[in-house]
Amino acid sequence: MAKKKKIAKPYLRKQSKRHTKLGKAPGTITYMGNREGLSSEVAILEYNEESCQLHKPGILEQIQAYKDSPKISWVNIVGLNDEKFVEKIGKQFGVNTLVLEDIVNTNQRPKIDEYENYIFGVFKMLYINEQEELAGEHVAMILLERCVLVFQEVQEDVFEGVRDRVANKHGRIRSKDSDYLFFALLDAIIDNYFVVLEHFNHKIEVLEERVYDNPTSEIAHEIQSLKKEILKVRRWIFPVRELVGRLIDSEHELIGKDTKLFLRDALDHTLEINESLQIYREMSMSLMEMYMSNISNKMNEVMKVLTIMASIFIPLTFIAGIYGMNFDNMPELHTQYGYFVVLGAMFLMFVGMLVYFKTKKWL
Amino acid sequence: MAKKKKIAKPYLRKQSKRHTKLGKAPGTITYMGNREGLSSEVAILEYNEESCQLHKPGILEQIQAYKDSPKISWVNIVGLNDEKFVEKIGKQFGVNTLVLEDIVNTNQRPKIDEYENYIFGVFKMLYINEQEELAGEHVAMILLERCVLVFQEVQEDVFEGVRDRVANKHGRIRSKDSDYLFFALLDAIIDNYFVVLEHFNHKIEVLEERVYDNPTSEIAHEIQSLKKEILKVRRWIFPVRELVGRLIDSEHELIGKDTKLFLRDALDHTLEINESLQIYREMSMSLMEMYMSNISNKMNEVMKVLTIMASIFIPLTFIAGIYGMNFDNMPELHTQYGYFVVLGAMFLMFVGMLVYFKTKKWL
Amino acid sequence: MAKKKKIAKPYLRKQSKRHTKLGKAPGTITYMGNREGLSSEVAILEYNEESCQLHKPGILEQIQAYKDSPKISWVNIVGLNDEKFVEKIGKQFGVNTLVLEDIVNTNQRPKIDEYENYIFGVFKMLYINEQEELAGEHVAMILLERCVLVFQEVQEDVFEGVRDRVANKHGRIRSKDSDYLFFALLDAIIDNYFVVLEHFNHKIEVLEERVYDNPTSEIAHEIQSLKKEILKVRRWIFPVRELVGRLIDSEHELIGKDTKLFLRDALDHTLEINESLQIYREMSMSLMEMYMSNISNKMNEVMKVLTIMASIFIPLTFIAGIYGMNFDNMPELHTQYGYFVVLGAMFLMFVGMLVYFKTKKWL
Amino acid sequence: MAKKKKIAKPYLRKQSKRHTKLGKAPGTITYMGNREGLSSEVAILEYNEESCQLHKPGILEQIQAYKDSPKISWVNIVGLNDEKFVEKIGKQFGVNTLVLEDIVNTNQRPKIDEYENYIFGVFKMLYINEQEELAGEHVAMILLERCVLVFQEVQEDVFEGVRDRVANKHGRIRSKDSDYLFFALLDAIIDNYFVVLEHFNHKIEVLEERVYDNPTSEIAHEIQSLKKEILKVRRWIFPVRELVGRLIDSEHELIGKDTKLFLRDALDHTLEINESLQIYREMSMSLMEMYMSNISNKMNEVMKVLTIMASIFIPLTFIAGIYGMNFDNMPELHTQYGYFVVLGAMFLMFVGMLVYFKTKKWL
Amino acid sequence: MAKKKKIAKPYLRKQSKRHTKLGKAPGTITYMGNREGLSSEVAILEYNEESCQLHKPGILEQIQAYKDSPKISWVNIVGLNDEKFVEKIGKQFGVNTLVLEDIVNTNQRPKIDEYENYIFGVFKMLYINEQEELAGEHVAMILLERCVLVFQEVQEDVFEGVRDRVANKHGRIRSKDSDYLFFALLDAIIDNYFVVLEHFNHKIEVLEERVYDNPTSEIAHEIQSLKKEILKVRRWIFPVRELVGRLIDSEHELIGKDTKLFLRDALDHTLEINESLQIYREMSMSLMEMYMSNISNKMNEVMKVLTIMASIFIPLTFIAGIYGMNFDNMPELHTQYGYFVVLGAMFLMFVGMLVYFKTKKWL
Repeated sequence: MAKKKKIAKPYLRKQSKRHTKLGKAPGTITYMGNREGLSSEVAILEYNEESCQLHKPGILEQIQAYKDSPKISWVNIVGLNDEKFVEKIGKQFGVNTLVLEDIVNTNQRPKIDEYENYIFGVFKMLYINEQEELAGEHVAMILLERCVLVFQEVQEDVFEGVRDRVANKHGRIRSKDSDYLFFALLDAIIDNYFVVLEHFNHKIEVLEERVYDNPTSEIAHEIQSLKKEILKVRRWIFPVRELVGRLIDSEHELIGKDTKLFLRDALDHTLEINESLQIYREMSMSLMEMYMSNISNKMNEVMKVLTIMASIFIPLTFIAGIYGMNFDNMPELHTQYGYFVVLGAMFLMFVGMLVYFKTKKWL
Repeated sequence: MAKKKKIAKPYLRKQSKRHTKLGKAPGTITYMGNREGLSSEVAILEYNEESCQLHKPGILEQIQAYKDSPKISWVNIVGLNDEKFVEKIGKQFGVNTLVLEDIVNTNQRPKIDEYENYIFGVFKMLYINEQEELAGEHVAMILLERCVLVFQEVQEDVFEGVRDRVANKHGRIRSKDSDYLFFALLDAIIDNYFVVLEHFNHKIEVLEERVYDNPTSEIAHEIQSLKKEILKVRRWIFPVRELVGRLIDSEHELIGKDTKLFLRDALDHTLEINESLQIYREMSMSLMEMYMSNISNKMNEVMKVLTIMASIFIPLTFIAGIYGMNFDNMPELHTQYGYFVVLGAMFLMFVGMLVYFKTKKWL
Repeated sequence: MAKKKKIAKPYLRKQSKRHTKLGKAPGTITYMGNREGLSSEVAILEYNEESCQLHKPGILEQIQAYKDSPKISWVNIVGLNDEKFVEKIGKQFGVNTLVLEDIVNTNQRPKIDEYENYIFGVFKMLYINEQEELAGEHVAMILLERCVLVFQEVQEDVFEGVRDRVANKHGRIRSKDSDYLFFALLDAIIDNYFVVLEHFNHKIEVLEERVYDNPTSEIAHEIQSLKKEILKVRRWIFPVRELVGRLIDSEHELIGKDTKLFLRDALDHTLEINESLQIYREMSMSLMEMYMSNISNKMNEVMKVLTIMASIFIPLTFIAGIYGMNFDNMPELHTQYGYFVVLGAMFLMFVGMLVYFKTKKWL
Repeated sequence: MAKKKKIAKPYLRKQSKRHTKLGKAPGTITYMGNREGLSSEVAILEYNEESCQLHKPGILEQIQAYKDSPKISWVNIVGLNDEKFVEKIGKQFGVNTLVLEDIVNTNQRPKIDEYENYIFGVFKMLYINEQEELAGEHVAMILLERCVLVFQEVQEDVFEGVRDRVANKHGRIRSKDSDYLFFALLDAIIDNYFVVLEHFNHKIEVLEERVYDNPTSEIAHEIQSLKKEILKVRRWIFPVRELVGRLIDSEHELIGKDTKLFLRDALDHTLEINESLQIYREMSMSLMEMYMSNISNKMNEVMKVLTIMASIFIPLTFIAGIYGMNFDNMPELHTQYGYFVVLGAMFLMFVGMLVYFKTKKWL
Repeated sequence: MAKKKKIAKPYLRKQSKRHTKLGKAPGTITYMGNREGLSSEVAILEYNEESCQLHKPGILEQIQAYKDSPKISWVNIVGLNDEKFVEKIGKQFGVNTLVLEDIVNTNQRPKIDEYENYIFGVFKMLYINEQEELAGEHVAMILLERCVLVFQEVQEDVFEGVRDRVANKHGRIRSKDSDYLFFALLDAIIDNYFVVLEHFNHKIEVLEERVYDNPTSEIAHEIQSLKKEILKVRRWIFPVRELVGRLIDSEHELIGKDTKLFLRDALDHTLEINESLQIYREMSMSLMEMYMSNISNKMNEVMKVLTIMASIFIPLTFIAGIYGMNFDNMPELHTQYGYFVVLGAMFLMFVGMLVYFKTKKWL
């Protein structure tokens, strides 16, 4: 139960933050997430074929420099609750106000918008955190010439592999342009959706076993929250397929022909993910069905025990009741072996009943 | 129960008013809402970058003036039961009879129609009223050059935020054209749909808890009315997405390129709303499923108690019945410790049964 | 039950009449309805802006005259079982044999076919008849230049309002062309679908209350027939939307630009009707769900009574049985207050049980 | 039960014959049906406006003659298990090997393929055979200039009406070209689908009544096989609509403009059939729902009887048990009217219980 | 149970291997299947109209030769866990790295990609293995000029028939180009899907019988795993239809006009397969429904037995209890035939009850 509540909170939070924006003008930059703690932190990974450096600029003005650097810069901003800060960075890179609004709007559904000089994308990073729970984090990415801006809510992310490949010159990433970096990050997000699917797969299997063993109402509750979780995750994952498809068809000059080939590969993955989600959804529904059928089965078993006990002993008790009557004239009572005959008859009835229920396969 | 009925009434009312229009010529202007009380009331907010005034013209003829004012006018008419009045205003602003019919037809489903000189839209404002109930109000809006006409049923509305922004010069609204005002009003309506979603979310969560605690038939009833409510609200909300989409693609000269950018933002919201509605619908269905499974569980529990009690005591009673028989020749009866042996045997059977049910996990 | 059967008959009738056509050549004009009674009856309403007359021509040949009259003629034929008669009229107005076949084929699903000189439409008039039952009547309409032919099965129809408007010069009908008359009739048919919806709405509400009060199997039966009724009505109503849409897009010269504007209004209505039908369908499904859950609830209640009674009295009876045994050596029996102690113990057990069930909320 | 199995066989047979074709080259002509008995039999109906003869050519070579006859020839081949024979006829009429494969492949789903000189169609004839069971028969038809080839599995078919019309010069068939004959045969197949629908309708009604009367598990079984039957029939009927639609849009010179008008009529029928099938499917699902609800109702009734009996007599038995105890000091036992007082009290309890259950509407 | 687990493993394996690829660069060639045992093995079937040889080249370099041979070569590689080996072959035949990645990615969903010089396809071979279980094997095929490369996981495959036809010159395969070989292999894969369908059909029928006989919870479990199996197989089979369709529409020069005719035939098969899968899915759902209804039925039966036993004997026991009371003044006890009168009365009640339950059809 405790688990369920923890997972449920983030969804709730998002909904209720909406209120704070009601009546505000569109284009107002308002962070929808958790405001406590965290100040924004910038880390810049600047690289080309030959070299690769990590910068942590103290002053905002230093960031500007990387925009025009001949190397590829991956500007990573963690923490979105300082809207002013985000706005300033946005200004420096020439980004539209509506885009800035979407960067801090953690409710924003996945989208990709193309602008003249840049491509803007919003996604949900999904991963299993240290408490073995599913966590969803809003991430916004802007692809510019020779530069990719990444805005994320907290430090934890799914980009470790990409950082590694850049730092250690694995694969082709160091020799490619910023569009490949953008793709690599998107690919990392999508690849992590598979981990979420595994998480669901595991949960379904565990529940399946538990439903089969002992269908308690707690399990029904857990199945229902699993269904809700899948429903909600689907909403974040599902649109990605179309977005990747649109990127492939896009004629924006920032996306190279080569990168499109890789995007096609990512498209394949999104297709597979969507199909799996659909299957997990149907499987979670089957779980509930299974649960109901097992409940009915248990009930059946309970009823059989009751029926067998009652059907055997109620008639026997009746016979005992007969000979417990106090009539003056009950000849059987005074026979020598009456008692033993009755006991024998009762025993025969008892055995007869057992045989009867055996043939009915109730025993 | 009382609550349910209050909410149910408005839907009923609408359906039954239909009768009054049967057989009338199309284009006949007939108000479908509640006719009691309320006379129409006009309030005009006239503004430009520099100034902003609120007028409440006494005579109808004065309204004409605002049509041709160089400032932007927001003509707000409250109360639609005076069809003559609506017709006169319509004439003054050169609006088609069929449009006037739709303005007062509170059954009209959401729509946007483009005419040569104006754009006409009908929507449902949804909000939670003071009784914490969901209220739906018909609203019609006409976008003209430098003027927006708004027709609403009652005083209560969701435009307070927009009025504020105009009055206090928040955001960019005062410096924009009438199409932006039209958009701002539409945006306010759409934003309020999120409140309705939260209302549903809250109701679902409360019901979830109650279903889990104690599944009474009242709860089943409430789940069903929630499902009905969602079904009906969906009908008002769902078409909005397509309407906004059409506005974006529209080539009507009244809608500026800038406003379209903002409309795209609103489109995102309608998408999110429709997805949420879908999720709430599925969750309300799961609620019913949950309810049924909990009922079955309770029944199971009841049956177990019965079975345990009966299975333990019926055989014991039978044994007591045996030794209550009045046969002359029952040797056990005359032994010194027969009674205590039987009592002991009964006790052992009792304990045996308890152990048996324990191993079956029924206890 | 009686009601259900009456409604069921017309559907049955239609299916079984099919047999009479098996093996016949296509284009054979065969009336599919009830052949008893009724001979065809013709009534012609001839009107223009200035005047309006009602003719009931005795001889068939007189009808021809109205075809070429400069006024608008509404030729209304009641009764389709005289195929020869229908064929003759068809010939007079230059109508294709396949069209004539569809006129008398009361199984024909709604359709609109455009021919060079005329437009042919088949619809179902639905209304609530005097027995408060839903009645469906086949109606075929042909739009010619300055003339509309209407073929209907029985006298009863939904065109009273249109007749009124023509006779009393209400609205614009008298000043318009035959296409407007065609539209007005179609609009009358569509408007009456709202009455059918109200009928469904009412039935659903009544059933909802009854399900809640006392879920008998008769109610389940009624819910199922309601579902069937909705299914079947939907089949007649649903296609109308697309047909009206096609009329609007049609470039047939008989349909004026003005009339298309009104048709767009009718299209809105058909949209609303289809959405409502969908909602009523889902509501009728929910009814069944509600029914099942109430049945389960009742069962639960019954089981609780049984369990409480049995759990309380079976152990008590057992104790009484103990002291009813006839052992010689049962010391308790011979104590002064043994009886009263046992009675007291029983009373305490009784109270204890009540308290236990109270805490379990079974009482 | 016997019935179900008989119907199930043909489906089974088809699936298992598949094996015999595994690994064979595509284009191999292999009959999939029942190989026993039956040798192929050819009957040719040759006709024009003036005359009509039936030929039964003994030698295969004679058939060639009819191909080039100036009259219309309807070449009807019964029995497909002699693949050599079919191949020879195919060669004579210049038919592609892949077409021949489809002719004998009784698993082929309905299709229409256009070739340069002919049009090839495969359909399922459905009819109710003498055992009142639904029978499905594979039929292949080839439309050539002045000739139609029909291949069918067994003698029984649905073309009697067409033969009649040709023989007795009913309708227009004798004066029309081979495309009209092709259409007439297709129309006969489609018309017979209505008989199948009636069969389903009848079955549903019978089951409905039986479910209502006495829901045994046999009925559940029959409902399920009805559902399966509808599912499988739908697969043969459903594609026909699109096929007819494609014929209408086809520009093949063999299909005259006139025939297309008639095909449009057939299209209407296929539409109606598909809608009905959909309705019957939903009705068969409702049947199962009805069944479940009736089972629950019966259970409820059973439980009520048990509860009433137990609730009345268990407490009474307890009281009797009290006064059956053997305590020495039980003052009531020795009063003059104790017995009668207790009897009276028991009677009052009995009546009280009855009243209680009456108010609960359990009696 | 054992069976279920064996089948479940391959799916599990695939999911969990995903992890090993997380964070790797796209285009990395990583085998996803079972790594134990198996080294890659190459077999080349080289043939033309006149001759046909089977080669098993020891050195990789020898394979190159077959690429440019004037004969048709079918290069068959078994075992994908040696990525280096696959990469080398890929290089020799000029295949893209992304293609190589898909070849060893056993999770790849079915797809066909066209490249300038070759066509690449990935499919799932499905067959029933020796343990009578459903097995799924990843297969990748590359169509080049005069050469087809086939990559498969293990030795077992569905191509025996094709090998036979090539070796023994059955059908037209020896006289056709490499595109026909590609088609023949694809056709073999598709044809084998029918075997899987039969497998499902058989399972459904067996389960149907078992559900009817004795609905245990094991059966519910098996139904659910069947549903899962169908869901998962559908995912591999379903996309094939569209892929074949795209091949037919393709304008790639490697696919001859002739082969397209055969592909159209394969398209028909995929259509039939998809329809059947849909039907089996609905039938597996019906199975669960059937199961639930049978459980309810059994419960009903159990309840009836209990109710009959209790209703008959509880009142009788009560009467016996009455005359077991120890009141001093119970006149009936002292009558001559009191006992026999009571016994008679009890017998009458017993018979009365039986008659009552008989009329209620409970017996």
